[in-house]
Amino acid sequence: MDKIRRNERMSVMMKMLSGAPNRIFTLNSFCELFGSAKSTMSEDVDLLRVVCESFDLGRVETVTGAAGGVRYCPAVSRKKARETIRGLCDRLSGTERVLPGGFLYYSDILSTPDIVNRMGEIIASEYAECAPDFVLTMETKGIPVAFATANALGIPLVIARHSSKVYEGSAVNINYVSGSGSIETMSLSRRAVKENQRALIVDDFLKGGGTAKGMVELMREFNVTVAGMAFVMATVTPEKKRISGEKSLMTLSVTEGEPAEAIVRPADWLMSDLQNRG
Amino acid sequence: MDKIRRNERMSVMMKMLSGAPNRIFTLNSFCELFGSAKSTMSEDVDLLRVVCESFDLGRVETVTGAAGGVRYCPAVSRKKARETIRGLCDRLSGTERVLPGGFLYYSDILSTPDIVNRMGEIIASEYAECAPDFVLTMETKGIPVAFATANALGIPLVIARHSSKVYEGSAVNINYVSGSGSIETMSLSRRAVKENQRALIVDDFLKGGGTAKGMVELMREFNVTVAGMAFVMATVTPEKKRISGEKSLMTLSVTEGEPAEAIVRPADWLMSDLQNRG
Repeated sequence: MDKIRRNERMSVMMKMLSGAPNRIFTLNSFCELFGSAKSTMSEDVDLLRVVCESFDLGRVETVTGAAGGVRYCPAVSRKKARETIRGLCDRLSGTERVLPGGFLYYSDILSTPDIVNRMGEIIASEYAECAPDFVLTMETKGIPVAFATANALGIPLVIARHSSKVYEGSAVNINYVSGSGSIETMSLSRRAVKENQRALIVDDFLKGGGTAKGMVELMREFNVTVAGMAFVMATVTPEKKRISGEKSLMTLSVTEGEPAEAIVRPADWLMSDLQNRG
Repeated sequence: MDKIRRNERMSVMMKMLSGAPNRIFTLNSFCELFGSAKSTMSEDVDLLRVVCESFDLGRVETVTGAAGGVRYCPAVSRKKARETIRGLCDRLSGTERVLPGGFLYYSDILSTPDIVNRMGEIIASEYAECAPDFVLTMETKGIPVAFATANALGIPLVIARHSSKVYEGSAVNINYVSGSGSIETMSLSRRAVKENQRALIVDDFLKGGGTAKGMVELMREFNVTVAGMAFVMATVTPEKKRISGEKSLMTLSVTEGEPAEAIVRPADWLMSDLQNRG
């Protein structure tokens, strides 16, 4: 191969770094890939850092120490997060998506990659400083967003199930009171998490908080700390949830009347420009 | 902002293009972003194309016509796919992951973002030419891989459920015979897909093919064509599945004996260098 130019090196590094957020790449691995000196690579990384800043594309960080190197963090600014969520609220508000019983149809939104990735990056930006070891969700609808969050944080996703499965091995089961007041089971494979880890709970929907509280209790069984809780959508009522300290991206209320109308708004915390830094 | 240099423009474009695979960006949008002439942007794109080729990082393509522009396709070469899958097979083979009943524990693999994204890109590379409109999976374990495939193809993910839910609206339910011989239900919201679309079925596990056949029948109810079927893992026995034409990434057999051992191998089609081009 001919000598590799700076624009080529930087493009390749940007692809590799941003394609694997929060994973550390050693400078040496790039030196070997390009046949370049370490000083050259450092310059390239500095330039990438500035590019990301200028274009609000997240952060390129240098990590020092024995396990050091370079990593990309998809830090979404509050401004950009608000724009994204406002756009979503516009799409979800109105009469067309309201289902019988006052439910909102938004399963399509929850599995459209572009949208899901952006929501995942917003949640990841908010909770990166809490240093979770894994993302926990309860099957089914929240899995894509939880996965996108895990991807943006560079950590595994762990999925709790409604019942234990033979192919998950021995499991811890707990019972919890669901939103409708019925007793439900939540199950998680013993192999899925380790004691003293930190969990970030991510799910699609928060109403009374029964399922979320179940996940918190499940984590207690594993001696795992809940580092944060994030939801795509929270209902305005009941105002008092069974959990607290969570962040939702949007709030939902549905008017009575014919036809019923969904009012979807960005959550209050998104309106502030003060980013959560732990 | 000062005049933006080529290495900066190329880095930003690489980030944006590879972060949204198979979505078309107009040259004009880049011209506006950088304040550059169209001829300059064309040169940048040509350079990016060569960079991606040289480093086996996928393809940058120019799409002509009214809706034209530039897009990134994460085309994984067979060589790279083999390396990835061989590495996975090594991790999954052996005695440690075998569960009572001869099941294999690999839920962790199915929700680790790095691994899942690579599997999704391999499947997407294989089926891009089949031009699916959406990826279909059946809850729960295959959702992350199906999502990663949908992301790599730039199309939505559609999730079939075991039962219809109030928040999915009216649904089509079918009954199918599961692997264990019991009759199960599969449900999909009417709003989820449109007639005459093309589905790519992606799931985590293929044994007899009962669930897969159920998904094929479900698509028939919607007048949707099945453009392809891909699975992370297929059991060696039964050799004859209820479906045909599928591609799996790995094959699994578990030896009898104490302790039982899992033998996980890359699927045969991965051994050929002839890429599927429709």
